[in-house]
Amino acid sequence: MEQINLKKLQQEIIRGSRLATARAITVIEDERDGFTDLLNSLHKNIGKSYRIGVTGPPGAGKSTFTNQLAKLYRKQNKTVGIIAVDPTSPYTGGAILGDRVRMVELTSDKGVFIRSMATRGNLGGLARRATEVADVMDAAGYEIIIYETVGVGQIELDIAEAADTTIVMIVPEGGDIIQGMKAGLMEIGDIFVLNKADRPGADRMQKDLEYVLHLRKPLLEWYPKVLQTQSHKNIGIEVVKEEIINHEQFLLKDNQLEIKRDRRLIKRIRQLVEKEMQSYFWNDNRKKILNEYLLNDKESMSPYVLSENLLKELKINE
Amino acid sequence: MEQINLKKLQQEIIRGSRLATARAITVIEDERDGFTDLLNSLHKNIGKSYRIGVTGPPGAGKSTFTNQLAKLYRKQNKTVGIIAVDPTSPYTGGAILGDRVRMVELTSDKGVFIRSMATRGNLGGLARRATEVADVMDAAGYEIIIYETVGVGQIELDIAEAADTTIVMIVPEGGDIIQGMKAGLMEIGDIFVLNKADRPGADRMQKDLEYVLHLRKPLLEWYPKVLQTQSHKNIGIEVVKEEIINHEQFLLKDNQLEIKRDRRLIKRIRQLVEKEMQSYFWNDNRKKILNEYLLNDKESMSPYVLSENLLKELKINE
Repeated sequence: MEQINLKKLQQEIIRGSRLATARAITVIEDERDGFTDLLNSLHKNIGKSYRIGVTGPPGAGKSTFTNQLAKLYRKQNKTVGIIAVDPTSPYTGGAILGDRVRMVELTSDKGVFIRSMATRGNLGGLARRATEVADVMDAAGYEIIIYETVGVGQIELDIAEAADTTIVMIVPEGGDIIQGMKAGLMEIGDIFVLNKADRPGADRMQKDLEYVLHLRKPLLEWYPKVLQTQSHKNIGIEVVKEEIINHEQFLLKDNQLEIKRDRRLIKRIRQLVEKEMQSYFWNDNRKKILNEYLLNDKESMSPYVLSENLLKELKINE
Repeated sequence: MEQINLKKLQQEIIRGSRLATARAITVIEDERDGFTDLLNSLHKNIGKSYRIGVTGPPGAGKSTFTNQLAKLYRKQNKTVGIIAVDPTSPYTGGAILGDRVRMVELTSDKGVFIRSMATRGNLGGLARRATEVADVMDAAGYEIIIYETVGVGQIELDIAEAADTTIVMIVPEGGDIIQGMKAGLMEIGDIFVLNKADRPGADRMQKDLEYVLHLRKPLLEWYPKVLQTQSHKNIGIEVVKEEIINHEQFLLKDNQLEIKRDRRLIKRIRQLVEKEMQSYFWNDNRKKILNEYLLNDKESMSPYVLSENLLKELKINE
């Protein structure tokens, strides 16, 4: 890629250029030279957006819902950034879900910016990268940012980490899913949306879900509601939007939103420091020691002893 | 807990004492004082066991299958350690799946050692901890070690990391699951077991699964088979056991097993180093800097700039 004119790119993002925004996201996603400088230069223009995560199992209708929700915000003249997070395989690196319904309706709307983002198999750091992509949109002036992702494994935890309000979507057929999703989805949801609620079993599913939610001990004094929608008919979305506002109001009380965002910031700093320390630590000499260990000493010396030996040097330098 | 007599505990484990083995696992799981010394002292007695991971969605019949597989090994007089990994909630810390079928039949068999292990919400380090628990069983002389865990999110990736051969279990009804599991299960399976194969849809499911597997690019020249079983009737287990041996033979060719285990060892060492460096790095002074940043500078200074400032000192000391 050609040399980035950082100052120019930054100025263009801040005045809302779509082209500059798209380009900056690519630079940051790929961690190209200068990406940290770019993030640093945008930093003072970040912090005005409200960030919503939409997650759930495949087929729950997340794209349609996100589409409708974005349209509601547009009616209020709020600008919307949408980040569609596509899980990629941790082993082959390829994209997994090719069946995402693209939000065709919105692409001609200048007040909406849509971007796909791959997890790249490397789940570590997804929360950080999703935050950074949102930061660029934030600097470009988008007021509402929606992360949309399929709820598989660690991904939804990372997205919840990057969002102010997390919406978990399910469908009436998802009885088994409640069982499977307990490991994560149940506990990250600030709002539960039971989509395709015209299908049989919706009321039963709502009761089941409310029961399970009732058992959980909330972290704060927020009790998540289960709201029924039919996204394809545009039914129920307005109520969800109001509940998002209720949740935002709740977080603004007692400074919870700032505390939540600070916690996110601390995690991000810890990750940055960790990443940097690892590349600092594993210099050629230490890599050589590790290789010699694998060749000669792995049967006689435990990994704990080796780690201690490797770290000794660092401690002396304290 | 009372002071550990390390030497005595180590000796008792090596001569196969169940009590000492159980106690050592607790010491290591809880990271009590002396746990690294204990692992170091056992290190030379580790490396003889073959480790099998059994994972899949809730209700696939993993416990019954594991039970039957263990009994087959027992018929050959091989000793078996079983580690049942129960996911705990990352938010409340409580256990999630209370419905695991306990392997009651096996508990009176002196050649079988069964242990439950919680993920503790902290998924980071699960592969390492699972490895360490298996190491104790290994030192105690158990020849086959089976990890059994529900396939939710990151957990199955960690277990595949700790296993030599990974078995992914599914059931004929799991059509949707194929979609959901693509994110991980599809790619960690060395062998796929289609359990409850007397139910409708088994052959169809087998074809679908074989088709998807056919699309995937294998990391090595190993092509996973899909094998049908009916664990509750003890049908098909022997064939799976033979396929495990085939996979072991495959790994032993060209040294793949050692390469795989070395890769695991490298990851473990990196994690140990990382953990140690983090606690070394975040001393009182740096914590103070971080807190001051949150109070005063987070709006003006990007996290990248802060991280760089924090790390400067470390670099000078190189």
